[in-house]
Amino acid sequence: MKKIGVFTSGGDAPGMNACIRAIVRTAVYHGIEVYGIRRGYNGMIKGEISKLESYSVSNIIQKGGTILRSARSKDFMTKEGRKTAYEQLQKLGIEGLVAIGGDGTFTGANIFFEEYGLPTIGAPGTIDNDLYGTDYTIGYDTAVNTALDAIDKIRDTADSHDRVFFIEVMGRDSGYIAIPCAIGGGAEIVMIPETDTSIDYVVDTLRTGWSRSKTSFIVIVAEGDAEGSATEVANKVQEALPHMDARVTILGHVQRGGSPTAADRMLASQLGIACVEGLISGRQNEMAGIIDGKLTYTPFIDTITKDKPINPEFINMVNILSV
Amino acid sequence: MKKIGVFTSGGDAPGMNACIRAIVRTAVYHGIEVYGIRRGYNGMIKGEISKLESYSVSNIIQKGGTILRSARSKDFMTKEGRKTAYEQLQKLGIEGLVAIGGDGTFTGANIFFEEYGLPTIGAPGTIDNDLYGTDYTIGYDTAVNTALDAIDKIRDTADSHDRVFFIEVMGRDSGYIAIPCAIGGGAEIVMIPETDTSIDYVVDTLRTGWSRSKTSFIVIVAEGDAEGSATEVANKVQEALPHMDARVTILGHVQRGGSPTAADRMLASQLGIACVEGLISGRQNEMAGIIDGKLTYTPFIDTITKDKPINPEFINMVNILSV
Amino acid sequence: MKKIGVFTSGGDAPGMNACIRAIVRTAVYHGIEVYGIRRGYNGMIKGEISKLESYSVSNIIQKGGTILRSARSKDFMTKEGRKTAYEQLQKLGIEGLVAIGGDGTFTGANIFFEEYGLPTIGAPGTIDNDLYGTDYTIGYDTAVNTALDAIDKIRDTADSHDRVFFIEVMGRDSGYIAIPCAIGGGAEIVMIPETDTSIDYVVDTLRTGWSRSKTSFIVIVAEGDAEGSATEVANKVQEALPHMDARVTILGHVQRGGSPTAADRMLASQLGIACVEGLISGRQNEMAGIIDGKLTYTPFIDTITKDKPINPEFINMVNILSV
Amino acid sequence: MKKIGVFTSGGDAPGMNACIRAIVRTAVYHGIEVYGIRRGYNGMIKGEISKLESYSVSNIIQKGGTILRSARSKDFMTKEGRKTAYEQLQKLGIEGLVAIGGDGTFTGANIFFEEYGLPTIGAPGTIDNDLYGTDYTIGYDTAVNTALDAIDKIRDTADSHDRVFFIEVMGRDSGYIAIPCAIGGGAEIVMIPETDTSIDYVVDTLRTGWSRSKTSFIVIVAEGDAEGSATEVANKVQEALPHMDARVTILGHVQRGGSPTAADRMLASQLGIACVEGLISGRQNEMAGIIDGKLTYTPFIDTITKDKPINPEFINMVNILSV
Repeated sequence: MKKIGVFTSGGDAPGMNACIRAIVRTAVYHGIEVYGIRRGYNGMIKGEISKLESYSVSNIIQKGGTILRSARSKDFMTKEGRKTAYEQLQKLGIEGLVAIGGDGTFTGANIFFEEYGLPTIGAPGTIDNDLYGTDYTIGYDTAVNTALDAIDKIRDTADSHDRVFFIEVMGRDSGYIAIPCAIGGGAEIVMIPETDTSIDYVVDTLRTGWSRSKTSFIVIVAEGDAEGSATEVANKVQEALPHMDARVTILGHVQRGGSPTAADRMLASQLGIACVEGLISGRQNEMAGIIDGKLTYTPFIDTITKDKPINPEFINMVNILSV
Repeated sequence: MKKIGVFTSGGDAPGMNACIRAIVRTAVYHGIEVYGIRRGYNGMIKGEISKLESYSVSNIIQKGGTILRSARSKDFMTKEGRKTAYEQLQKLGIEGLVAIGGDGTFTGANIFFEEYGLPTIGAPGTIDNDLYGTDYTIGYDTAVNTALDAIDKIRDTADSHDRVFFIEVMGRDSGYIAIPCAIGGGAEIVMIPETDTSIDYVVDTLRTGWSRSKTSFIVIVAEGDAEGSATEVANKVQEALPHMDARVTILGHVQRGGSPTAADRMLASQLGIACVEGLISGRQNEMAGIIDGKLTYTPFIDTITKDKPINPEFINMVNILSV
Repeated sequence: MKKIGVFTSGGDAPGMNACIRAIVRTAVYHGIEVYGIRRGYNGMIKGEISKLESYSVSNIIQKGGTILRSARSKDFMTKEGRKTAYEQLQKLGIEGLVAIGGDGTFTGANIFFEEYGLPTIGAPGTIDNDLYGTDYTIGYDTAVNTALDAIDKIRDTADSHDRVFFIEVMGRDSGYIAIPCAIGGGAEIVMIPETDTSIDYVVDTLRTGWSRSKTSFIVIVAEGDAEGSATEVANKVQEALPHMDARVTILGHVQRGGSPTAADRMLASQLGIACVEGLISGRQNEMAGIIDGKLTYTPFIDTITKDKPINPEFINMVNILSV
Repeated sequence: MKKIGVFTSGGDAPGMNACIRAIVRTAVYHGIEVYGIRRGYNGMIKGEISKLESYSVSNIIQKGGTILRSARSKDFMTKEGRKTAYEQLQKLGIEGLVAIGGDGTFTGANIFFEEYGLPTIGAPGTIDNDLYGTDYTIGYDTAVNTALDAIDKIRDTADSHDRVFFIEVMGRDSGYIAIPCAIGGGAEIVMIPETDTSIDYVVDTLRTGWSRSKTSFIVIVAEGDAEGSATEVANKVQEALPHMDARVTILGHVQRGGSPTAADRMLASQLGIACVEGLISGRQNEMAGIIDGKLTYTPFIDTITKDKPINPEFINMVNILSV
């Protein structure tokens, strides 16, 4: 392998730059040329590709976002789009790819591999941590700490005013972000897609708390929860408890940015190295991940189709700790 | 003066605890007993009052919120409520009050003083900085830094995705929070109640930017802007620019919490001292503030009724700096 | 088991409060009374012990330090001291103990158990992560992030001035803190007790870098490194490279404080629960830990005597990534 | 004026990049070409000068350090060096300069102006805040907040262990950084060059505190204090109080880095604009500053030779607040 390309795709996540840096430097270390493809599959089709050197990735390990930018690409979903993309890569002599992203990214990579056989290895870059094949995704730890920092601030004002705060955190269809936010944020209730936490339960818990002279509460609502958004949940609860002084905060895109934590920089660096060394050793169509502290490679198809269930014990922890 | 009371009222603000600490310690320093009144005027009426010692305020200078808690009080708006409040203070022999809060707090204090003549000095504690009689209010600098930190994170993701972000910041009827967020956050546009920034202007600015290959934008919307909330502004702009990839973030209550900045701790400490020393020297019915680096006392009635206009030059700065 | 005691001992670590909270609430949840012992073994001897309720640990999960305080105890190293301690616990009817701390703490606990047979379970609370029986100790993730945040700041000034910075981080006899600081901080060199990184190697690496037009460097020195402190290392290197513009920073006690990260709050909460549930289920003389995501209990004697070697691959990562 | 140059010189300070950005954009806004001179006077002599566009300063407002780098220049202290520098500027047709730095920078600028008459305006960029002609210098607010954040962390561990911490902060010959660190950090004692705080006073204060059951203390030592460094002060105090459990922390270069605060971004932006607009309006050989909220220009010679005394009241505040 003499030349490889690297790109980021889908929603950006803190640590993507640390991963790009590791990929570039590992390639250079092994005498491989590396090209940066801008704006994901879109840039691959349009040929927005340029060579990266070791110094190109200096001083980016601590930066949020992605210097290669990201985008969703409708064109890559068409046969023609992928053909053009392949031709662009061929023209430059690119023999392998590293894709940093989530399930949409790997779905595209999987089809592309099946059609053109270009070896591709993926690094799991998404704040949602909802990918099978790795204990943690790049960006997850940072997103959780960012959310927790916001929750700490909100508790200051919740406590000062005896209020109930309904805080919505990201996570798509999973409660991976919500759970540590609830446990670490000292929340009384957590509502996640994986479990049924009814409005009645919320109402009862608040009533019980008040009867025990507890005056401020935090309810963490994962964005994908079946009872609806934090606003909807708050409205339903308010109906049953008209005297409740409630506030809603939707943390939003703040969770996607910021300087990556130490854990995310480590993970991104380890997986970036693993992607390039995987390509060198002949691996293809797999995602690098770390499970139980050990480096693993999982076929793209499994990362897309298999579930990564959340530990049910964590829900119980919220109950014990808010006793 | 032998005994004074202190309370926080209205929305909480970072630095209120630093101010309470300064008030208690200055009182102790001058041999005055000091009582903490919990939950603002509500607690005054209900007699939720207890003695504070020097150690009662140890290790609180860095904490957000208010250890005395805060509340809005309907009862204090009635003659009877104020009578009960006065009797509660009389019972304990309290001869002076320090009120930490905003215009609602001082409106109440002003009426109370007129009816019962109890000397009261106020400290400006509100994140909104919309009080006449001081250059800065306690909590303002922290709120701005918290908002700016969030905006920095959002710009990571805005840049990575070539998006337009509409970010709503607090500030009630003023642009005091929005302005430094826009200038410090490198925003392209700022919309504040004090000026007319039309939807057309926003649309034109974005179009001009795109024509110059600028791909990501940040628009700061003060919550009190005439064009509506950030969501409403985004929707209006989207109508004119259907291809715009826009996102809305409402920073919300996060802005009220957090550990106070150095400037807020200094200001809170200075004004806390000034409140107690003002009472000792016979001042009453005034708010302590700092204007052009000098300690001043302004009658409550002026702090409530007079405007503190924003420097119009700041708007121009946003235009120059986003050139 | 009806009554248990909890204490922190040795150097404090962020997350100790989150652990105390989990212990107290889990005890309350299971109908067990829980007593807080202040100042470690010292307070046990002096009887500084008082009952804790669920509300006693409200609003502490986010706080650095330990509300129970910590101390080293010479008296507990004597037979008499331990006898008095046991009598104090007997007097209150305490039937089990939870000890939060490091190897000194567990050495004491082990002897105490052998002499008096009082069931004790430990939670690993130390920033150094040098305890066998758990992948991570409580406080480690926070310490690393705090150090990394400081290193990010130092790199700003290193880059601006073309300087070589020698930064000393904590970690006692291990490089656990130094390694992620070096990888995450984009350092060129890391010196840890577990490996031999000679002064010659440092000198050569700097020379090679300069020859490749690299102008600023960061060298992370673990406090226990064989070549000496960061100051000593810098002096030795300076001798060989008189024109080097070097600066030394010793991060120091800052690394012990601060609000715990999400990971530390989670770990502290999980292990706090595990300590109490371990006692309930009849465990004793063991430390709770998490290895490969699974809860484990390790005899105190093993946590003290067995080594937890650092992954040698990490050293190699620093070399690859600074290419 | 058609072409101007900008450079940073002396110690770097957070906000220098925000200032560079404002200078570049203001020049562009007024149709003036702007050149970036790298590494201060050194780069001026060597001709390390290149044109900057509006986009050259995108996304730097939040970054610590200086993208133009900084250096001290021995060559510029010679007649010949300055001659070469002038010729380099002449060659490019540069008609005016903006110098961001401290007193060393302005000393050089003043001589250069006297010799060659090239209009130069300065922006005060130094964390030390020791420049006459402005209430605050760019970088000061950030440095204080960074130091305070570290002190907050240290207090966690001080409180947990009943220790006395001697913390050394920067500030060259002034106590400007030390004072808000002491007041905002809840320190018991502050030692600054401007006042005499004897070792005896420290010893007495600690003794009195212990006698009142106070168990942990923080002493802030400005680096320029007459009693010596924090280490020296601690040693002297330890002699008188052998049982004191003392620790020393030297905050060091961390204080120079980090993302600038809102106040520093505002100040840097305002002064950057003022520098360029000052040049346009014919000003020269002056430093832009803000005094009592108003923009002012002060002759370089005054900024170098005149003192900016610290408010003596602040010392008294430390005494009152640690009562």
